[in-house]
Amino acid sequence: MKVYGIIMAGGGGTRFWPLSRKAQPKQFLNLTGRDILVNETFDRLTQVVPKENIYVVTNTLYAEKTAELMQGRIKKDHILKEPAARNTAACIGYAAMEVLQKYGDGILCIVPSDHYIRQESLYSRTLEKGVALAENNDCLVTIGITPTYPATGYGYIKSGTEKDGYRIVEEFVEKPSETVAKQYLHEGCYFWNSGIFIWKASVILHAFQKLLPDIYDCLRTIGEAMGTEEEERVLAEIYPRIPKLSIDYGIMERADNVVMLEGSFGWNDVGSLDAIALLHDADAGGNVSVGSHVLMDTEDTICYSKNKLIAAAGVKNLIIVEAEDAVLVCSKEKAQEVKRLVEMLEADGKEKYL
Amino acid sequence: MKVYGIIMAGGGGTRFWPLSRKAQPKQFLNLTGRDILVNETFDRLTQVVPKENIYVVTNTLYAEKTAELMQGRIKKDHILKEPAARNTAACIGYAAMEVLQKYGDGILCIVPSDHYIRQESLYSRTLEKGVALAENNDCLVTIGITPTYPATGYGYIKSGTEKDGYRIVEEFVEKPSETVAKQYLHEGCYFWNSGIFIWKASVILHAFQKLLPDIYDCLRTIGEAMGTEEEERVLAEIYPRIPKLSIDYGIMERADNVVMLEGSFGWNDVGSLDAIALLHDADAGGNVSVGSHVLMDTEDTICYSKNKLIAAAGVKNLIIVEAEDAVLVCSKEKAQEVKRLVEMLEADGKEKYL
Repeated sequence: MKVYGIIMAGGGGTRFWPLSRKAQPKQFLNLTGRDILVNETFDRLTQVVPKENIYVVTNTLYAEKTAELMQGRIKKDHILKEPAARNTAACIGYAAMEVLQKYGDGILCIVPSDHYIRQESLYSRTLEKGVALAENNDCLVTIGITPTYPATGYGYIKSGTEKDGYRIVEEFVEKPSETVAKQYLHEGCYFWNSGIFIWKASVILHAFQKLLPDIYDCLRTIGEAMGTEEEERVLAEIYPRIPKLSIDYGIMERADNVVMLEGSFGWNDVGSLDAIALLHDADAGGNVSVGSHVLMDTEDTICYSKNKLIAAAGVKNLIIVEAEDAVLVCSKEKAQEVKRLVEMLEADGKEKYL
Repeated sequence: MKVYGIIMAGGGGTRFWPLSRKAQPKQFLNLTGRDILVNETFDRLTQVVPKENIYVVTNTLYAEKTAELMQGRIKKDHILKEPAARNTAACIGYAAMEVLQKYGDGILCIVPSDHYIRQESLYSRTLEKGVALAENNDCLVTIGITPTYPATGYGYIKSGTEKDGYRIVEEFVEKPSETVAKQYLHEGCYFWNSGIFIWKASVILHAFQKLLPDIYDCLRTIGEAMGTEEEERVLAEIYPRIPKLSIDYGIMERADNVVMLEGSFGWNDVGSLDAIALLHDADAGGNVSVGSHVLMDTEDTICYSKNKLIAAAGVKNLIIVEAEDAVLVCSKEKAQEVKRLVEMLEADGKEKYL
């Protein structure tokens, strides 16, 4: 059976402000110094999926910019446009329906567009294992990342012991407290929920039909219009009505055919600005610099600038970002709350900075 | 006797980097939001000295820019150009010689160009008292500032008890430790050394002759050439040879006719970036903002920007400055050491930022 890649690139995230903006979401950022995240995701996926079989699902707003920034990697008809952001269940259902209608069936490798992978060959081998598993067992495969520290910023998957190279999923659990995260790390049967999924289009749509029949009805209506002159109109009408639901909450936590493959390829969801430190080498003082900077008596600080020199003196545990028309100075402890800062800007009538 | 104003504006200071630069020393900065410091100094001085009697002494390098930025306040021949920076003794001796040669004699009110004065009318009255004192007693008058906190960044003047409205100076003392500064504040006979001086041109030159005869010889040679075609050539030849010496060290600490007037007009030498906080109102969290900013969980922080918005989150006791091609993030504790940071930039081949 043919394999298809589905890159989820609909995020409009504000958590990387001032690097990310409304018109420049995180997947368009070049945080590694190599290429923008969505292109790194695409290129990585071509090790497992033929490039002509890769789709990107994004918001209609970003479709043109996505095509432009992906520089010929992808045909325009492989950019699926969401008329509204409806979370991952809708996004995945839409892509599955597209593959089913166009090609009959196929195995989908579904990956977020904006994550970081350290060991690409190990990543490829893990996905290939997932493809074989999904093809032979009609199951819903997810990748659980072997935790390397007691992370409180990720959801966890509780799994049974390994058998035949995979694990039965017992439970999906929410982001834990520090104490609980330490216990998870100790117990050894908890894995980070990576948001990477592998399954047949037919199998996931069957799960929608069974567990989310209302959404399934919407998807079927959209599917019936696919390839007709009505497609765009129907999509614009129906898609925004699909409830906002994550695939985890809507299907993964409730389906009985979920299995987990262990991934230990070095993964990070690049969820907030402090993740920049993981993408670059630090100096002896634990500082990470992107751009031209000078540091005096400074420790564990990230300096990231697009234009200006940053000079830091006597500071510790900070994230300093200069970009376009704004400068952010944020303690690492508050990295998760940059979103709130952006809300303050909005409330303050400073939309031009968003 | 006529009164002359001498504004010392030769500083090339790096302590206000990145606001101040080699081509833009502190006296050219508008830190208050009203006008640049040298203009505020000039306008303040006109309450005591007729404006046509005011001189500015600056480095030849800054002469043109000084004339331009002072916007017609001062005639070009009242900008005295130092061919080299030789500290305050040379500067004051040069200005005294100019007045003596041009006008016979006169009382000089000598003020730094880049200090902050809160109560201008009280300042004027203090200077006027000094003028009367210098005129009638042929003494060297200095203003000692009534300390309001145990400052460790200023030199102190130890004085005797007040008599006839002035105090005899017992001793000039170096910047103290915190403990010693607290003791000074408690004792009540210690005052901050403001660097403001009032005396007759003839009296200070007599002091040079007696205490610094080598420098006096240089000044006399320069004085003899004044008004002749040789003036510029002689100045360029002799001035750079004058030893670098402060007026405090060379004369004030050694002369026996020094008296002190108490100044309680609200004074600050604006010696480092943290002084910005004194020039502006703080919000309830002790933050001072110049420019458009947004603060979240931030305390006692200065945000000063020329162009970009600054967003601060979860920080405390910082100085954040955005200017031209650089951003500085500095703990207030390190404000005094910005000079060292600038040296690091220089050593690192980053001269273009200086």
